[in-house]
Amino acid sequence: MLMACMVLLPAAAYAASASDDAAPVLVTPAEYAAMKREGPQAPLFVAEQRNLERTVRKAMAAGIVVPLPKDPGGGYTHEQHKRNYMAIQGAGTLYRLTGDRAYADYARDMLLAYARMYPKLGPHPAQRDNQIPGRLFWQILNDSVWLVYSIQGYDAIRDTLTPAQRATIDNDLLRPMARYLSDDTPKNFDQIHNHATWAVAAVGMTGYVLRDHALVDKALLGLSGKGQYGFLAQIDQLFSPDGYYEEGPYYQRYALGPFVIFAGAIQHNEPKRKIFQRRGGVLLKAVDALIQSSYDGYLFPFNDSLLDKGLDSEEIVTGVDVAYAQTQAPELLSIAKWQKRVMLTPEGLQVARALAAGKERPFAFRSILLRDGANGDRGAIAVLRSGGERGLALAMKNTSQGMGHGHFDRLSWVLYDHGERVVTDYGSARFINVEAKQGGIYLPENTSWAKQTVAHNALAVNERSQFDGEWRKGEATPPQQLLFAGEGDTQIAFARMDGAYPGVVFDRALAVLKHADLPQPVVVDLLRVHGSKVARYDLPLHFNGQIMAVGFDATRHVADRPVLGGKAGYQHLWVDAESAASADPRTLTWLIGTRFYTYRFGASAPTRALLVESGANDPDFNLRHEPALIQRMDGATDATFFGVLEPHGEYNGTAEYVHGADSRIQALRHARGSDADVIALTLTSGATIALGVADDPSPTRKHHVVLDGTSYDWTGGHARLDRAAPAQGGRKP
Amino acid sequence: MLMACMVLLPAAAYAASASDDAAPVLVTPAEYAAMKREGPQAPLFVAEQRNLERTVRKAMAAGIVVPLPKDPGGGYTHEQHKRNYMAIQGAGTLYRLTGDRAYADYARDMLLAYARMYPKLGPHPAQRDNQIPGRLFWQILNDSVWLVYSIQGYDAIRDTLTPAQRATIDNDLLRPMARYLSDDTPKNFDQIHNHATWAVAAVGMTGYVLRDHALVDKALLGLSGKGQYGFLAQIDQLFSPDGYYEEGPYYQRYALGPFVIFAGAIQHNEPKRKIFQRRGGVLLKAVDALIQSSYDGYLFPFNDSLLDKGLDSEEIVTGVDVAYAQTQAPELLSIAKWQKRVMLTPEGLQVARALAAGKERPFAFRSILLRDGANGDRGAIAVLRSGGERGLALAMKNTSQGMGHGHFDRLSWVLYDHGERVVTDYGSARFINVEAKQGGIYLPENTSWAKQTVAHNALAVNERSQFDGEWRKGEATPPQQLLFAGEGDTQIAFARMDGAYPGVVFDRALAVLKHADLPQPVVVDLLRVHGSKVARYDLPLHFNGQIMAVGFDATRHVADRPVLGGKAGYQHLWVDAESAASADPRTLTWLIGTRFYTYRFGASAPTRALLVESGANDPDFNLRHEPALIQRMDGATDATFFGVLEPHGEYNGTAEYVHGADSRIQALRHARGSDADVIALTLTSGATIALGVADDPSPTRKHHVVLDGTSYDWTGGHARLDRAAPAQGGRKP
Repeated sequence: MLMACMVLLPAAAYAASASDDAAPVLVTPAEYAAMKREGPQAPLFVAEQRNLERTVRKAMAAGIVVPLPKDPGGGYTHEQHKRNYMAIQGAGTLYRLTGDRAYADYARDMLLAYARMYPKLGPHPAQRDNQIPGRLFWQILNDSVWLVYSIQGYDAIRDTLTPAQRATIDNDLLRPMARYLSDDTPKNFDQIHNHATWAVAAVGMTGYVLRDHALVDKALLGLSGKGQYGFLAQIDQLFSPDGYYEEGPYYQRYALGPFVIFAGAIQHNEPKRKIFQRRGGVLLKAVDALIQSSYDGYLFPFNDSLLDKGLDSEEIVTGVDVAYAQTQAPELLSIAKWQKRVMLTPEGLQVARALAAGKERPFAFRSILLRDGANGDRGAIAVLRSGGERGLALAMKNTSQGMGHGHFDRLSWVLYDHGERVVTDYGSARFINVEAKQGGIYLPENTSWAKQTVAHNALAVNERSQFDGEWRKGEATPPQQLLFAGEGDTQIAFARMDGAYPGVVFDRALAVLKHADLPQPVVVDLLRVHGSKVARYDLPLHFNGQIMAVGFDATRHVADRPVLGGKAGYQHLWVDAESAASADPRTLTWLIGTRFYTYRFGASAPTRALLVESGANDPDFNLRHEPALIQRMDGATDATFFGVLEPHGEYNGTAEYVHGADSRIQALRHARGSDADVIALTLTSGATIALGVADDPSPTRKHHVVLDGTSYDWTGGHARLDRAAPAQGGRKP
Repeated sequence: MLMACMVLLPAAAYAASASDDAAPVLVTPAEYAAMKREGPQAPLFVAEQRNLERTVRKAMAAGIVVPLPKDPGGGYTHEQHKRNYMAIQGAGTLYRLTGDRAYADYARDMLLAYARMYPKLGPHPAQRDNQIPGRLFWQILNDSVWLVYSIQGYDAIRDTLTPAQRATIDNDLLRPMARYLSDDTPKNFDQIHNHATWAVAAVGMTGYVLRDHALVDKALLGLSGKGQYGFLAQIDQLFSPDGYYEEGPYYQRYALGPFVIFAGAIQHNEPKRKIFQRRGGVLLKAVDALIQSSYDGYLFPFNDSLLDKGLDSEEIVTGVDVAYAQTQAPELLSIAKWQKRVMLTPEGLQVARALAAGKERPFAFRSILLRDGANGDRGAIAVLRSGGERGLALAMKNTSQGMGHGHFDRLSWVLYDHGERVVTDYGSARFINVEAKQGGIYLPENTSWAKQTVAHNALAVNERSQFDGEWRKGEATPPQQLLFAGEGDTQIAFARMDGAYPGVVFDRALAVLKHADLPQPVVVDLLRVHGSKVARYDLPLHFNGQIMAVGFDATRHVADRPVLGGKAGYQHLWVDAESAASADPRTLTWLIGTRFYTYRFGASAPTRALLVESGANDPDFNLRHEPALIQRMDGATDATFFGVLEPHGEYNGTAEYVHGADSRIQALRHARGSDADVIALTLTSGATIALGVADDPSPTRKHHVVLDGTSYDWTGGHARLDRAAPAQGGRKP
């Protein structure tokens, strides 16, 4: 009966609709035929198909196992229903790719078993107070994901079923599910949130498969049909104009999945919507932004992030395949090659075939400003690169809070060089899905350490975290990205933060500078604080490597190891060394991999230098032990911290040689003018690198600073003001 | 005039001698012609030649720089003379490979410059009291190395010189150098030591090039000509019958260089000596032994060793090329492929051509016993492997001391699995050639920590190191390798140590056991101590990874971190946790890479379990911070420690799943009979793995042990005594 209704829908609206109203629409029969024909010529596609066959055969051997929903996340029924949706999708695909009817029958029997059970289900028994329950899973999110996957498998086999079987699955399972995920749960469906994206994708794709335009409209425009919610509004509001997603790269990766899957389905069925062109192609920008937010295959670990989350995660594989199909950009192929994976879709086939034909070009990792906020006015991540994929990459974290998964790290930064993490971000304190680690959820130390300001390369005032560690406060106040220049020998990112601490405004400029006398570019850091009363300012630098030389006198705690403080993350730091207060610049040199790094740092008032390591007050061994240097200034109101981080030399343990182990910077100096600062580096070659940074980024304002008797004058927010080596006669021997 | 003398020598004794008495002999003209002709077809050879051209062209651009010797190691004149011998050898080779006379002229001018300077030189001004000085370098060793390299370059260009030029170089430089390195310094030359190997190689190769058989005889047989010293005696005495070299893999790699270079020269000039067949082919065994003493390209870091010393070091590249030329073993090619290097020699050409032809086969990393001592009776390194190159590899250190570079680690072990270091050895405390780290020499912590027993997985008694840390004492007393079985489902290494501590004898069996109910093999450890009085026994396990679960109650030092002890390495350990004494087995689970490891351990008397980390009392940040578990037993005389280390499960951070995070071993039990022990592992499957180990390794003796009411009877040193799962009815739920 419902089948009869469906043919009344305006099927002509869908380009891909078939004459047979049971034929596949998410992937067309012609596309499946092409995959079957051409897939075997593309090794990556073949390997993927073989993997899937192994998984699905294993599931088929276990039979149709559809238990009554009972367990929460991680429990048996939860995991079994997850396995089932993977198997339904996989079996559908394999039926089309191999012609083997056993796959279709398996998917059919699985779906019929669900159709028998679903009408009897009420809210999941393991529901939690603050979550909308699903029917199959403890939270509705997983039900949405179940449907996104299963509908793809069903689409693939629907034309193998009898009308009665189709009616059973359509009416007893899919329509009720789609109704539950939309009309019955408006608080989940009508939202601008990535959980709602899974819901609209599930409902919309079900609409395409059932030829039910009303479902598709709900998915695209929200329950009211007015476009305030739904997929189009989500595209418009969840990404910044540069394709950045507020929670940061780790969660952007997660959010990306349903966007590209549903957009792909829309493109197939309603190409006239030009969904991938919407808002300047923001979905494709989001894929690019995510790749740009990585180094050596791993995402920048800003906010709650696992350090080992790589570009080869399934969502990014999907994103790359879909983006390649849209753009044919050969540089995406080099990412796919690194991923060693493709989807078993027409898009995945395109990628696999292009790779087999050797069409890939290196991905152009470049300096880029990824603005945050739907309008691009809530800060940014600023990425400065030099030397390509495994060269130097600096990422400055000037974004808004990132909701509950955000860290209190405004104006922090990380640095990668020569394939290594050099200046680090702890990421999240979590061992995902490891039962022994609190069941795999975020650990207590995620809050007590990983989110806190002192766990980042960011300014901490009076041993407190920014916004006192309250993310809702943080959400209200983004930083300002004042300046970004990502090309040439002077790259710079400059941002300002007002409101992270009461009465304190601070700004920071991070610059990547090249010079003919230095084999590697150096990073210059200028951080200026304007306070309203005397305070303690701590500026940590978390680094990775073995200390080679401590260039200052310090009391060492070699036989007892005190803890730095009592709260805001300080309780997790052991103190290994502390210096007396001094206004003279100091150095610290470490070795990571085969390269040395010398950090040279000074300040406008005397500071103490502390060498610390994470791991204190960690009863369950949840933390990694990682070193940091903290510059501590007491008693100032306004203050300036300035430093330079210099990669140099080579340590070769195989051939047992070392060269360039000494810094090529002889001196670091700083002066403040009335409205600007100059940082000058004297090189061992005699030349001077100087960088001017004004308070005001305006390109037309003039500035004047005198440093050690030398005048520096420039116009604009920043300027490079180098001096050549003095003539031979003028130099001291 | 001397030239005239030389033709009187019995040149017919040399197979490779040319009619032209200036033609090359170390590599023949025909071989050079083949390299010139065929090298361009072998990509690895081409790349190597291109690298060498770059280096030599750079040296040539700098001109002939032969400074008067002045500086000690690392100083300017030292480094310049090192650069020069590389350049002389390289230029000679390139002249032959390219025909470009500029290379020959450069090598000639360099050698003539040395010939002008050498006769005027006395003992090097930077000589040290306890070292024989060179003329060019502060120690004679470097002079030997200079000549080994330079004579190769000279040989290549000798036929381009005028008789007068040859006479100058022969008589003013080479003969005086050879004389200084032999007759004038008998204490260096007549030695069974790898420094003497460099001297005899230098003198012998000079003999071949100058057609001076007397020099060759000295090199082969020592100054007396009786064979007590010299190269042949060194081959016979410096390696064990299995090709092991006493100091361990790191120094074996270093010692190997002159052996294979000089042996190659002998093979070229006197093939009838069958030098590579001598002593059962011990030089080729030494190359194989070295490769077998590695995991994932890095040498086992026993004794003073850098962890990053790999199979791609130059000495091993030379060794692999020479060994391949002798054996044509295709598995050596896979090592060469990993090395990405070949020598620019006929042997290197063979390797490069074979690789270009795709002839390589995987190297068969296998279980192997590498006996120590010239007669193979001074202990051994026992290597147990399962699962090939990146599978599980256990190496047990039952060797003699290894002279001054030896560590106090008898019956210690390391474990690799799944590409990771799992149970570790610290190696040496040294940053080689890093000026900031004490000039790159061994650090004080090498003695105070790295060599000490507690820094290893070895028994420490009364908080002292074996032999009280005196290597000469250790040299006198090797352990006994009692048993080795390297095949099948039960691999075992069993050794005994008497004399490391007064009145204490201990033995240890380490076994790698496979079982159908376990996806990975497990390691069983049984250590038995027989003391003469009550003592404190500490058994450390140094592991690599993040602690997942501490399976016992322990007091945690979370806010102050005490130091474990005052000497013998204990002063370098922070204490993080300590349990009360108990006789119940305990567990510790950690994660490294993508795999979990559970160590389950017990003892015959109550022990405390300490969790510690290296890094205390380290004022200069010289130590890495690495965790260890120490089992501490107080008040016993005789004692047994038993344990099982189980790799399990998978952590996948990309796909965010975990499986097998729980151990599949339910219980660990142990019983002692009158003359043997049984260790039993009850698996979660219900099956029991049991291993019997007798005190006496004799294969014919019978043993009887009762464990929890079950009798275990076997004949021989060890036996596998598994029981199937009890019938369903008999099992408790």
